[in-house]
Amino acid sequence: MNARKSSNTTWHDVTVRRHDRAKLNNHRSFLLWFTGLSGSGKSTLIHGVEEELHKRGMHTYALDGDNVRHGLCGDLGFSDQDRVENIRRIGEVSKLMVDAGIITLAAFISPFASDRLKVRNLLEPGDFIEIYCNSSLEKCEERDVKGLYKKARMGEIREFTGISSPYEIPTDPELTLDTGTKTAEECVTQIITMIETRLALREWEIKK
Amino acid sequence: MNARKSSNTTWHDVTVRRHDRAKLNNHRSFLLWFTGLSGSGKSTLIHGVEEELHKRGMHTYALDGDNVRHGLCGDLGFSDQDRVENIRRIGEVSKLMVDAGIITLAAFISPFASDRLKVRNLLEPGDFIEIYCNSSLEKCEERDVKGLYKKARMGEIREFTGISSPYEIPTDPELTLDTGTKTAEECVTQIITMIETRLALREWEIKK
Repeated sequence: MNARKSSNTTWHDVTVRRHDRAKLNNHRSFLLWFTGLSGSGKSTLIHGVEEELHKRGMHTYALDGDNVRHGLCGDLGFSDQDRVENIRRIGEVSKLMVDAGIITLAAFISPFASDRLKVRNLLEPGDFIEIYCNSSLEKCEERDVKGLYKKARMGEIREFTGISSPYEIPTDPELTLDTGTKTAEECVTQIITMIETRLALREWEIKK
Repeated sequence: MNARKSSNTTWHDVTVRRHDRAKLNNHRSFLLWFTGLSGSGKSTLIHGVEEELHKRGMHTYALDGDNVRHGLCGDLGFSDQDRVENIRRIGEVSKLMVDAGIITLAAFISPFASDRLKVRNLLEPGDFIEIYCNSSLEKCEERDVKGLYKKARMGEIREFTGISSPYEIPTDPELTLDTGTKTAEECVTQIITMIETRLALREWEIKK
């Protein structure tokens, strides 16, 4: 096959780049990373925020246990080692999604600060936005939507974050939400306001 | 946090779906899977096709060794077992990308028919479009853009497809391209024509 070749292109030069996708979409892309205990509201919030962004014509995708744990990470369990690999893969997929021009929303307990830092470092500076869903263990356990805390207390689930496995609180997240006291609507509004401010600040980037 | 709840919604109901993204993008999404020997033109073609689709305002992303082998699959080697896992993960990522509304282009040797079938089965019917880049081993080896065939012949690369590891020719691909004799431009045109026909046939889907 005779491909286009010139002295300054390689055999398979990448032609459509992230910046071109931002122009097409009319917005830049980034990763919103929601971390917090089970039951702290992460999944509710990513879907609430995604809906609001979609209404504004933005290109979004939400990653959570539902679409990752049974697929890409279906071979992994819940040991410390598997949790690390789980977050690594999600980080790599998020990086591809952001490169594809998508505002990516990820909701994972991601209890270890080192794993979250690795994802942050995978991405370009400013592209990883850590959102800490702050709700006390008591509140999360009281709510116990999925009945997981009960099972963990009964010893039916081993290495359950907050009960038998640690959660390392983010020390410098881009946003902390008091999901234990605020409504979902209030939290979504807070996030959208933050995003709009950030997008406005960096709007020039896609004009270039 | 008091989330919106009703008797027929769960705590984290997915609100933005693939169909909504197709409406926003004004086109449906699918996976173009390019398979063939090393040097058969896969990467050249995905980038050529991506450029053409992007010009038409379509939302695309190209997956190949460059952005997958060092990232998501950086922990995998080239043994049969690792090749299987490599393609499995790429299939899962492609599925997420297609769900995100992206026309996804994947260029991987993917020598085993069973692996390609697994990816096909992961996706919705009609979403996996197999494109066989047909070029003889002699042509690919003669070209040897990356110098890999030479290394494989010298035994410096083990389990190299076509030399020391099998390539199973697709028996029923959606498209076969004679990349050994045609130009890149001719092949890209053939693919674009196929895509436009398919999109036109299924255009009604995003109008619903």
